[in-house]
Amino acid sequence: MAKPLFLSLSLCLILLFHGCLARSRTAQYQSQNACQLNRLEAREPDHKRECEGGLLESWDPNHEQFQCAGVALLRLTIQPNGLHLPSYTNAPQLVHIIRGRGVLGTIFPGCAETFEESQRGLGGGGQPGSQRDQHQKLHHIREGDIIALPAGLAYWSYNDGDQPLVTVNLVHVSNSDNQLDLEPRRFYLAGNPHDEFPQSRIQQGQGRRSEERQRRREEEKEQQGLPNNIFSGFSVRYIQEAFNVDSETARRIQNQNDFRGSIIRVKDRLDLVRPPRSRQEQEHETRRQELRQAEREHSRRQSSRDNGMEETVCTMRLRENIGDPARADVFSPQAGRLRTVNGYNLPILNWLQLSAERGFLYSNAMYSPHYNINAHGIIYVIRGRARCQVVDDFGRSVFDGELRQGQALTVPQNFAIVKQAENEGFEWVSFKTNDRAKVSQLAGRISYIWALPEDVIANSYQISREQARRLKYNRQEASLFTTSHQSIRPAVTA
Amino acid sequence: MAKPLFLSLSLCLILLFHGCLARSRTAQYQSQNACQLNRLEAREPDHKRECEGGLLESWDPNHEQFQCAGVALLRLTIQPNGLHLPSYTNAPQLVHIIRGRGVLGTIFPGCAETFEESQRGLGGGGQPGSQRDQHQKLHHIREGDIIALPAGLAYWSYNDGDQPLVTVNLVHVSNSDNQLDLEPRRFYLAGNPHDEFPQSRIQQGQGRRSEERQRRREEEKEQQGLPNNIFSGFSVRYIQEAFNVDSETARRIQNQNDFRGSIIRVKDRLDLVRPPRSRQEQEHETRRQELRQAEREHSRRQSSRDNGMEETVCTMRLRENIGDPARADVFSPQAGRLRTVNGYNLPILNWLQLSAERGFLYSNAMYSPHYNINAHGIIYVIRGRARCQVVDDFGRSVFDGELRQGQALTVPQNFAIVKQAENEGFEWVSFKTNDRAKVSQLAGRISYIWALPEDVIANSYQISREQARRLKYNRQEASLFTTSHQSIRPAVTA
Amino acid sequence: MAKPLFLSLSLCLILLFHGCLARSRTAQYQSQNACQLNRLEAREPDHKRECEGGLLESWDPNHEQFQCAGVALLRLTIQPNGLHLPSYTNAPQLVHIIRGRGVLGTIFPGCAETFEESQRGLGGGGQPGSQRDQHQKLHHIREGDIIALPAGLAYWSYNDGDQPLVTVNLVHVSNSDNQLDLEPRRFYLAGNPHDEFPQSRIQQGQGRRSEERQRRREEEKEQQGLPNNIFSGFSVRYIQEAFNVDSETARRIQNQNDFRGSIIRVKDRLDLVRPPRSRQEQEHETRRQELRQAEREHSRRQSSRDNGMEETVCTMRLRENIGDPARADVFSPQAGRLRTVNGYNLPILNWLQLSAERGFLYSNAMYSPHYNINAHGIIYVIRGRARCQVVDDFGRSVFDGELRQGQALTVPQNFAIVKQAENEGFEWVSFKTNDRAKVSQLAGRISYIWALPEDVIANSYQISREQARRLKYNRQEASLFTTSHQSIRPAVTA
Repeated sequence: MAKPLFLSLSLCLILLFHGCLARSRTAQYQSQNACQLNRLEAREPDHKRECEGGLLESWDPNHEQFQCAGVALLRLTIQPNGLHLPSYTNAPQLVHIIRGRGVLGTIFPGCAETFEESQRGLGGGGQPGSQRDQHQKLHHIREGDIIALPAGLAYWSYNDGDQPLVTVNLVHVSNSDNQLDLEPRRFYLAGNPHDEFPQSRIQQGQGRRSEERQRRREEEKEQQGLPNNIFSGFSVRYIQEAFNVDSETARRIQNQNDFRGSIIRVKDRLDLVRPPRSRQEQEHETRRQELRQAEREHSRRQSSRDNGMEETVCTMRLRENIGDPARADVFSPQAGRLRTVNGYNLPILNWLQLSAERGFLYSNAMYSPHYNINAHGIIYVIRGRARCQVVDDFGRSVFDGELRQGQALTVPQNFAIVKQAENEGFEWVSFKTNDRAKVSQLAGRISYIWALPEDVIANSYQISREQARRLKYNRQEASLFTTSHQSIRPAVTA
Repeated sequence: MAKPLFLSLSLCLILLFHGCLARSRTAQYQSQNACQLNRLEAREPDHKRECEGGLLESWDPNHEQFQCAGVALLRLTIQPNGLHLPSYTNAPQLVHIIRGRGVLGTIFPGCAETFEESQRGLGGGGQPGSQRDQHQKLHHIREGDIIALPAGLAYWSYNDGDQPLVTVNLVHVSNSDNQLDLEPRRFYLAGNPHDEFPQSRIQQGQGRRSEERQRRREEEKEQQGLPNNIFSGFSVRYIQEAFNVDSETARRIQNQNDFRGSIIRVKDRLDLVRPPRSRQEQEHETRRQELRQAEREHSRRQSSRDNGMEETVCTMRLRENIGDPARADVFSPQAGRLRTVNGYNLPILNWLQLSAERGFLYSNAMYSPHYNINAHGIIYVIRGRARCQVVDDFGRSVFDGELRQGQALTVPQNFAIVKQAENEGFEWVSFKTNDRAKVSQLAGRISYIWALPEDVIANSYQISREQARRLKYNRQEASLFTTSHQSIRPAVTA
Repeated sequence: MAKPLFLSLSLCLILLFHGCLARSRTAQYQSQNACQLNRLEAREPDHKRECEGGLLESWDPNHEQFQCAGVALLRLTIQPNGLHLPSYTNAPQLVHIIRGRGVLGTIFPGCAETFEESQRGLGGGGQPGSQRDQHQKLHHIREGDIIALPAGLAYWSYNDGDQPLVTVNLVHVSNSDNQLDLEPRRFYLAGNPHDEFPQSRIQQGQGRRSEERQRRREEEKEQQGLPNNIFSGFSVRYIQEAFNVDSETARRIQNQNDFRGSIIRVKDRLDLVRPPRSRQEQEHETRRQELRQAEREHSRRQSSRDNGMEETVCTMRLRENIGDPARADVFSPQAGRLRTVNGYNLPILNWLQLSAERGFLYSNAMYSPHYNINAHGIIYVIRGRARCQVVDDFGRSVFDGELRQGQALTVPQNFAIVKQAENEGFEWVSFKTNDRAKVSQLAGRISYIWALPEDVIANSYQISREQARRLKYNRQEASLFTTSHQSIRPAVTA
């Protein structure tokens, strides 16, 4: 029995593997010529909105390099005690915490309210015996975290620390989970929020009708202060009925006279039910590992016993820290480090078809020239500066310049890129539009050139076997290289 | 041995689960701004064609709300003894039987002819010993059935009852199984049928060439009575050769002088090989369950023993009844009931990436405000009337009106909707463009508001903890609510 | 234990099966009306480039029939001792070897260099102890092979035979693994290659900007001899740093003055590390089978023991011979033979979502009228001639003519086709845009007509039961038919 079973199982896993690879990644074609890019740009946010409790900045999603990648990019700064109101987007998001700490709450439909208060004497409401507040699981978030948020999943976040909580959010609008068009859309469930992407892509291209719509809407908002959370579109009486509340509360939900924006400041502190943070980050980590293991075991057992679909969704891990130096995937004491999060170490990314890499290049170190095999890369610079070149299929340099803190650059699939840190070093996060994004290095120990026979190298490049051998073996490092020179100010290529 | 195997298996299932979620749903982007909808409409069919044996009605697939959803919608009325000729479409279909009963035959290539006549004395043809007719499996269909038809699968249907057989067909043109463009296409294998979608999308937009094509075709048909089943494009001599028949029969197949349309009236009754229907519907159901169980067991054993791919395809279940009150998924004696069919209870839907919900709201009852997380919804009203509001990402009401029997309304992904039945109640089917379509309720016991901490509610909506508590807990029902008032005639929202 | 496990496993496999079917095939919609085809054409290559070591021919990817199918087509002739320089494409490729033999090297990032030289005294380079060259696995290729190449995978090929090596390459630009737009792009890693698709699709449609880009580029190349392998876009100093070589070698890699084109002639013979070819093709085959079996066993064991993802990728089979008459899937001594390669017999095709069929129709034999259920077909004629008709959804003949050696014809999904060989026979390869491409025959023993009840046939076509019976059973062959007549010169259909 055991042997054939074992084989079948292996076969099953192999099939699974192929299945995984084979899955369609994205439904990506915005238009037939979306990636005819002559020049990429390192860009800072195009648009800025002050809110009561923070700042909301966005990159213009109409810019060709974002349209080619099918993404929209946002930066949120939530001040201490600030609350980003509950909302959901039409496409999955990857959120990277650049700085600070906080709490994030998600609302998985059908999942139980598993966090409950210990004791509480309010005793209001119409509910018999509802002394204690209950709500769904909360997630502690901190610098270096990647958080994966599925399309349509409502969530809110709160800064419970004492410094600003800064996040960069990638909205993958060309993801197959977005069945609407390619406009990034956020549906707010509370407040009277600002429009995140005022330069929405409707203004460009085919959408004359949309332009009017956009203009009309802006006018409406400015002149009449119309609310725009999702409840504001329903009649007050429907809201009364649905929630079984009085008309005043129903009107409150529509937030007619709320000018706080989408990030509000909480009066006092937010009173949340949650397990305490550990004093020692170290202990916390250890415990977290154990908990995670236990959680996995649990969901495994559930899923094979009683289908357990909901169980698995409800306890699904959404978060992975990629900022911790001690857990680097690639490390060179001279050159820097890399950490990757993908479908293997954060399984929800298989669903979202996204992944990310965080890297730190030490002073003057170089990231091997390479290309993304099966994904676009969207680089956001966390700290420092680097010189960078990107090359297209015609062998033309479409980017040759500096990348600085706070800037974003898109590197289209298959375009080759090389980076060299300036003196102050270079730290970045790169979002990838594939849950198993793969990189092909062009130089170094795990590279294209090592895989080639020497004689192919010699003939291809019209060099001697001797030269071919040097070309192949002279660089023994893996992907992060030390350099003999300082960062190069390259001449402009034609 | 057993333990690791078990774990591996569980892991396998978990991976599968993720794999399922991760699968690309649709390749949906008709154009960059396909979902810039300012106003939705409850629409009745735009086009009507009388046939010899019935009526064919279609909604204009060019209407923006159908283009956003990437679907086309049809209604067929097959009179008793009417036969809808064999055909296939370029995209998968969900067929819901609104009324009546009948027989549906599918043609799975490579599957065996498993239905055979008991005795028959004709003895014609060139075939030695072919006394008995044999053909592929037939399916009994009846009111309340959802039938899933893959793209490119030929099928025919026949009304063997004594009242009209009425079906509503959703053609999911933006499905990834359709590799042609977004025009709904039906390929007839017999007859001289009408065009189902005369307002085909080619007339709009970029397609001047197509417009000509359409016009020319209409002219051709009307002036010269050209046939247009698929065989009519082949030379008569090829058909003679292929079927090894005389030229008269070959010409018959091309149906040059057939004016019966795509639904014909059968002379006498159709003489079919099939197991008898049971007298007692109840017995029938029980037996069907057992048969299904046996069928599953069988295909399970087959698939692990000898690959068995074909076996599974050939006995695949295409049908699930969602009209039976006794099998509701959600039921409230005061408010109504809901029944869902999706990839879990009708596995072929995993392949088709579609699902459906059928609901019945009792007099004045309300369906909780909610949104579709990962799918568009296409509502068709089976009986009664309801008031309905739909809200977009700007918090604007894009639909605020009545839905009546025979009307269809598209609810785009993530748009919020609320429905309240009028006095006569409201029964509907909602097709969803995802095999695991998920809904997020905004009010009630399994809702967004229950998942939020009270303090987040209080701060978000600027209300007291007391009010927050009422907002959260005052509505204890799940998704179908009784109301204190009659249906509301809402004021027009700006 | 065993029983439930067994059932679970079976369930798992069933789910897998559904999963496989359900996977999104392609993100195919180039534009809304890409498949409004009034007429198909049998086309020879539109463009030709002479290289030092061979010839490069391409079909215009802008032609509507290639745009509908979302593919680009190429023919390469590599002269003896010619080397097609290392490159990768933005979309997966299927390569069919029409004639000749050679060696193909792939570069899988992260895979080990598993081919090593026995002894070698060069001892150069900076590497201590690097006497022996090592490189990744090489593949022997020969007439009749289908080779599957993933998007972004670098590869090179070399003709080590004594006759030209001719290949036809299908680039599946609408594949979901291509996240760029629909332009076929090849990134060369060496040389100063020609543009493969000078009539790139950017010249058509929306791309005025692109047109300029294209023109500018052509001017640049012709006037200034600008190189365009991928390294030429990087600064020389970056290349020096990356490879740790002198500036002369760095410049060599950029190949500034290389006019050999993308297929070069190797000086002497290419000196490669590889297992010897067997003398006896027969022995070779047997051994290959065994090796393959062993390989599978190995990867099975690996994958269940230590995840083994990389292991499986590194030893993945890329090649299957479909030209060998002895291994036909369908064979008729009178009519011909068929051989199919798909996700079942070459699992990498599950990932690439492509498959292929090779067929040989003997003199005057006919391939049953049929349609592709879930794929486009792209036919390339290897030898001989055939008469062919293709019919669309309006029953109109969109192709009615001859197919000759060296021509290509696209058959869109669901369009019906019939082929009859001329006197000299007809041999072809048909690439399909689905890893489980399925065909539905309209005549013959495994066909639509056999699956229908006789009475449905009689009523649909308005013929007698007697005639229906003949129509159904007169052609007893499966898919390849002998004919009584010579190939038919069909009259022009209106």
